[in-house]
Amino acid sequence: MPPLPSGVCWRAVLARAHSARLSSGSRGASGDAGCAQDHPAVVGELRGELDRFGGVSVRLGALDRLDAAAFQRGLQGAVFDENTRKILVVQDRNKLKNMWKFPGGLSEPGEDIGDTAVREVFEETGIKSEFRSLLSIRQQHTNPGAFGKSDMYIICRLQPCSFTINFCQHECLRCEWMDLNDLVKTENTTPITSRVARLLLYGYREGFDKIDLTMEELPAVYTGLFYKLYHRKLPDKYKTMTLMD
Amino acid sequence: MPPLPSGVCWRAVLARAHSARLSSGSRGASGDAGCAQDHPAVVGELRGELDRFGGVSVRLGALDRLDAAAFQRGLQGAVFDENTRKILVVQDRNKLKNMWKFPGGLSEPGEDIGDTAVREVFEETGIKSEFRSLLSIRQQHTNPGAFGKSDMYIICRLQPCSFTINFCQHECLRCEWMDLNDLVKTENTTPITSRVARLLLYGYREGFDKIDLTMEELPAVYTGLFYKLYHRKLPDKYKTMTLMD
Repeated sequence: MPPLPSGVCWRAVLARAHSARLSSGSRGASGDAGCAQDHPAVVGELRGELDRFGGVSVRLGALDRLDAAAFQRGLQGAVFDENTRKILVVQDRNKLKNMWKFPGGLSEPGEDIGDTAVREVFEETGIKSEFRSLLSIRQQHTNPGAFGKSDMYIICRLQPCSFTINFCQHECLRCEWMDLNDLVKTENTTPITSRVARLLLYGYREGFDKIDLTMEELPAVYTGLFYKLYHRKLPDKYKTMTLMD
Repeated sequence: MPPLPSGVCWRAVLARAHSARLSSGSRGASGDAGCAQDHPAVVGELRGELDRFGGVSVRLGALDRLDAAAFQRGLQGAVFDENTRKILVVQDRNKLKNMWKFPGGLSEPGEDIGDTAVREVFEETGIKSEFRSLLSIRQQHTNPGAFGKSDMYIICRLQPCSFTINFCQHECLRCEWMDLNDLVKTENTTPITSRVARLLLYGYREGFDKIDLTMEELPAVYTGLFYKLYHRKLPDKYKTMTLMD
């Protein structure tokens, strides 16, 4: 494996920070002492610890991590620069070698869709960007034995704010600004990436309003919380109309 | 509570079938006997069982249920009949009383987006329908203490195949076919429902292609599996083009 780049590789740092495995915690007020920490037991994809009674314990307080790790609510960021017609693409180091795809990763619990895409793109490529729209949702059914491992991946359109690539060599083999036409033409890409590239080309040529789902905040009824709602842009006359016919 | 309707109330039947709570399972080959089944302990929203050692156990094999129950990947179905301009709406029995909203519920692990919406609408209202498009995604951040309880709700456009309402009185107070204009005008609805009603009116008047995200299946690269990809309809010339400039 080549050395890490001289710049900070946020992805690798965060991967290490997140690598603490789920382990047995206190059970009741006095349960800590005597738990066997040396014999991790793997149950499906959840790693528990053998406890002093020969059972397997998993700390429930860590289940919010499961949400991100096991259930895969993922995001990809299609970072497209309208001025140069360039799109940011990566090649994975470990899988899908030589296949160009968009950078991305899993969302943290409670994290906004756009925030996840921006964060993941930065961690993987060093490029700063801003959320513009939601483009597509991908669903795939994987092995139900893996805790009904989930299947939702959201692809966002992002606008770049910086252009100097400093990609995570821990994860990526290559990272480039590629002409969008070249991404549409290449065979070295996944069917999904190729399709989204064509969608972006359609938006670039005929207006991004053709392809975007925009975001708006709306209040919940009783809770005082706010929802973020993504849908096609609604003309103002429909938003404000109170009477019709 | 009024009696259940004479017809089969699928929702209530299924709710009962799903009501088996997470409980301690066998720990090792011989762990079943002696578990105290009488003292459920509540940890956050996950219900475990006190075991014979005074600890709390949750069966890991039931975590796929957690996916649907605790992490809330939900669907709502906006069942709209173009011929009569009627939209199917319900009022909850237990919450948001007098607020008209779309029927819906939580997806089962491994279930398609459209299939969930169609199933939930049928269970709640007795109306059969077909998936037409994905309209909107809702995100809300709730109490992170509830296992990072999730936040994704997807709203689909469905086409009705039957029209005789047989709603689940266990869950709903009312269920009606309402004129879409009336739903746009009413104050007895949630901000989200009102917004989606306006989106539907926009589609009804100016073409559903203005608001729909259509679905297409695309192959994964190596696995032989298929993805379902939802995005704005892409003109054929962009789908098939191989060279450009």
